Amino acid sequence: MSMMKYTPRSEIESRIQRLQREIAELELDGAIITYHPDLFYFSGTSQNAHLFIPRTGEPLLMVKKSYTRARHESPIEDIVELPSLKKMPGMIEKAGYTDLGRLGFELDVIPYNTCLLYRKIFSDSEILDVSGAIKNVRLIKSPYEIELLREACSVIDEVYEDVPDWLREGMTEIELASLFEAGMRRRGYGGCCKMRAFNQDFFLGNVVSGTSGAVATYFDGPVGGSGLTPANNPHGAGWKKIKRDEIIYIDYTCVVNGYTADEARMFVIGRLPDKLTEAYRAALEIQREMVDLAKPGVECGVIYERAVGLADELGFGENFMGMGNERVRFVGHGVGLELDEMPVFARGVRMQLAPGMTFALEPKFVFPEGAIGIENTFAMQEDGAEVLTLANEEIISV
Amino acid sequence: MSMMKYTPRSEIESRIQRLQREIAELELDGAIITYHPDLFYFSGTSQNAHLFIPRTGEPLLMVKKSYTRARHESPIEDIVELPSLKKMPGMIEKAGYTDLGRLGFELDVIPYNTCLLYRKIFSDSEILDVSGAIKNVRLIKSPYEIELLREACSVIDEVYEDVPDWLREGMTEIELASLFEAGMRRRGYGGCCKMRAFNQDFFLGNVVSGTSGAVATYFDGPVGGSGLTPANNPHGAGWKKIKRDEIIYIDYTCVVNGYTADEARMFVIGRLPDKLTEAYRAALEIQREMVDLAKPGVECGVIYERAVGLADELGFGENFMGMGNERVRFVGHGVGLELDEMPVFARGVRMQLAPGMTFALEPKFVFPEGAIGIENTFAMQEDGAEVLTLANEEIISV
Repeated sequence: MSMMKYTPRSEIESRIQRLQREIAELELDGAIITYHPDLFYFSGTSQNAHLFIPRTGEPLLMVKKSYTRARHESPIEDIVELPSLKKMPGMIEKAGYTDLGRLGFELDVIPYNTCLLYRKIFSDSEILDVSGAIKNVRLIKSPYEIELLREACSVIDEVYEDVPDWLREGMTEIELASLFEAGMRRRGYGGCCKMRAFNQDFFLGNVVSGTSGAVATYFDGPVGGSGLTPANNPHGAGWKKIKRDEIIYIDYTCVVNGYTADEARMFVIGRLPDKLTEAYRAALEIQREMVDLAKPGVECGVIYERAVGLADELGFGENFMGMGNERVRFVGHGVGLELDEMPVFARGVRMQLAPGMTFALEPKFVFPEGAIGIENTFAMQEDGAEVLTLANEEIISV
Repeated sequence: MSMMKYTPRSEIESRIQRLQREIAELELDGAIITYHPDLFYFSGTSQNAHLFIPRTGEPLLMVKKSYTRARHESPIEDIVELPSLKKMPGMIEKAGYTDLGRLGFELDVIPYNTCLLYRKIFSDSEILDVSGAIKNVRLIKSPYEIELLREACSVIDEVYEDVPDWLREGMTEIELASLFEAGMRRRGYGGCCKMRAFNQDFFLGNVVSGTSGAVATYFDGPVGGSGLTPANNPHGAGWKKIKRDEIIYIDYTCVVNGYTADEARMFVIGRLPDKLTEAYRAALEIQREMVDLAKPGVECGVIYERAVGLADELGFGENFMGMGNERVRFVGHGVGLELDEMPVFARGVRMQLAPGMTFALEPKFVFPEGAIGIENTFAMQEDGAEVLTLANEEIISV
């Protein structure tokens, strides 16, 4: 892993064509895309830029900073410098697009005041939401994207192999976390793990040991962790020292070339209490059942219900996906350029699995003595869910 | 450093009182705060919650997740569980506040669609922007906050001391970055560095060597870096190998207990070209001049102009704060719970320095052969700017 990877032109063209079909269906005249994960998906660059995609015709990439770099990275033909946002309507008109009566923006992420600014700049246009259409297009990954995700998964797999060498009694969670994170970084973790949801940003993942695994957080996931402070990302590894015979729960994202692997594995120095070992077996069984069920055409809600039902049957229903009133109501989520993509495996979700979807399944349990479970990243193929994260699934005891 | 630090009640009370004065001036009936850095500032917790601050009277913290944890962390008296956002108006009414005709929200960061939801929920209220008032209150740091910032600065200072031991010819930028980041993490770097600006998130900081320092990015700072991918945070350390006799530019944020230190230092394996050494001397001279000027009552714009003028006088004007058309138009910025706070040291900024302001000054130059400069974090005291970051300012040669 040591080269900058640029998105091929054919990928960009097919993505834009698919969005143009959605734009036509929404009866928009075009869309303006600026949020980095979307911008990268449709243009191949994450520079400070606005991408105009007309209902039909060629896109126009207007770049504030860095123009040089955007030209180098993006296969889009028409790339112009954008000295000021106010110049956008004129530039779009100059490119030959004069009818902008209905214009789509990413209104699920763009701040309210910024949207007011767009309204002022495009004073003759109705500003509408195009984020649903963008999510629909991004939902089905191309073979190229699945290969990138596979590489991200192989990076985190490698790091999991190093964990047994690092473990020692008395080290803090944050020490172990810093080693794991550095292991991913030097192998290609590009930086932030992107979340579309507001206020849900967190730092890469979790190392929690024993009772820390029962500390709930703001984060909409089954397992929290104390973090280092109530201030900034109170989640994941904290100052707690890792003891013998307690569960060491590691769950990280790994974003390589933009694509987000998500994988959790369990470790112990010594030997786990039987209850946790049993719960882990239940998690593996739930995972197996979900994977068996996951075929094209199956509704995600059905898989969720089966997971919850099986957790009950196995006697751990009260601790499935959290504890008490801090439980979350899903067992899996789409992954791609963001961590919180579709499909969501939750109650009542009618979305059917289809080839090209990529997602993480994460049956987990939380007890007062710790969190335990499994998480893997999958790609939906014609014949079923292919697992992309391949680290040893046994509880590793040192 | 090994304890969770909770905000004292007296801090929270004084902050809320100051905001209430702003709320009264804006003729609002109250404000609802949910964006994590603001929420933490006014409540002491960053859980998933909404804080209602009435124009007069006691605040009400409504918590979705984790309620237990918010109660543990926040000194606010009135804390309730919020099962659904729709319940907010009823809860606020129950707390005795019935007149919510004009309600302030953080409209500079809240996504457009989320704001529509608030509008629906508070259908009898006018939804107005309170973000300017919040920034005004947060601008002046208390002695308690300055002590927290001082601690964050001492953490990054310690990590800079380790750098000479890590440097070796042929290592990649990302290897060095992973070591630096791990050094900060295990000493207390809590996670993300918060940016208020949309689409400006980046990963902790920069390690760039030689020509990498001239690679511009989306980021609104003087120095970019290739990053590992055009996808996700194309900024900072990349795959480039570090060579002899080239500048190794390191510039990191360090967020400890929520407060953001910002510090840059220069290294070389061997010996730098004379031009870069000279430019570095110019950066130090500009820093000295800015610090001399920085007294209470002085306008930030005046300091910016003096820095730009001095860069010109010293013969490096063309390369100050970037190169060519990728230059940025500031030489410093406020730091606190976020990296992009007020005051900004830029052209025309009339804001006057005052005791309690905390900021980073960063005179830097970018040449085709690399970036070089200095950055320190300061606290404004009655008698001048006190430097809080204390690592050796010489170019360290190994």
